[in-house]
Amino acid sequence: MFNVKVFITLRESVIDPQGTVAKDSLHKLNYSEVSNVRIGKYVELTIENTERNIDEIVNEMCEKLLVNLNVEDYRYEIEEVVAQ
Amino acid sequence: MFNVKVFITLRESVIDPQGTVAKDSLHKLNYSEVSNVRIGKYVELTIENTERNIDEIVNEMCEKLLVNLNVEDYRYEIEEVVAQ
Repeated sequence: MFNVKVFITLRESVIDPQGTVAKDSLHKLNYSEVSNVRIGKYVELTIENTERNIDEIVNEMCEKLLVNLNVEDYRYEIEEVVAQ
Repeated sequence: MFNVKVFITLRESVIDPQGTVAKDSLHKLNYSEVSNVRIGKYVELTIENTERNIDEIVNEMCEKLLVNLNVEDYRYEIEEVVAQ
């Protein structure tokens, strides 16, 4: 079994309205130290043992469904969980 | 300067409709190996040098704005960026 963590962020060139609003709100709450906020998606996948290559299927799932490749970048971490 | 990564997930006890829909879609795309999908938020914060305790302000910002403590859990990673 595999626990996969996918981190999906807007490309740097893409304006992040959510992040901008969050930054302004944090400034209003007196956290003026905050100079930038980027808000993205965090996906946790549990994948049962499979014959298929785990990196391949994670990339396919990201590119087919989880990530909007026009405006988003992604990276992921795979942790294999060995049955006790 | 600090780069902070905040991982916000729905509490386990909370139903995750987005995750359920994503799982069903992945099954329709023949990724039947996927047994669970949880979708949360991933926030990247850039925080300039400050007199205040960095852990304290990150927790405060999460609890006051970024996280809905009724239904979400969060964890974070702090990376100090030393000026070259």
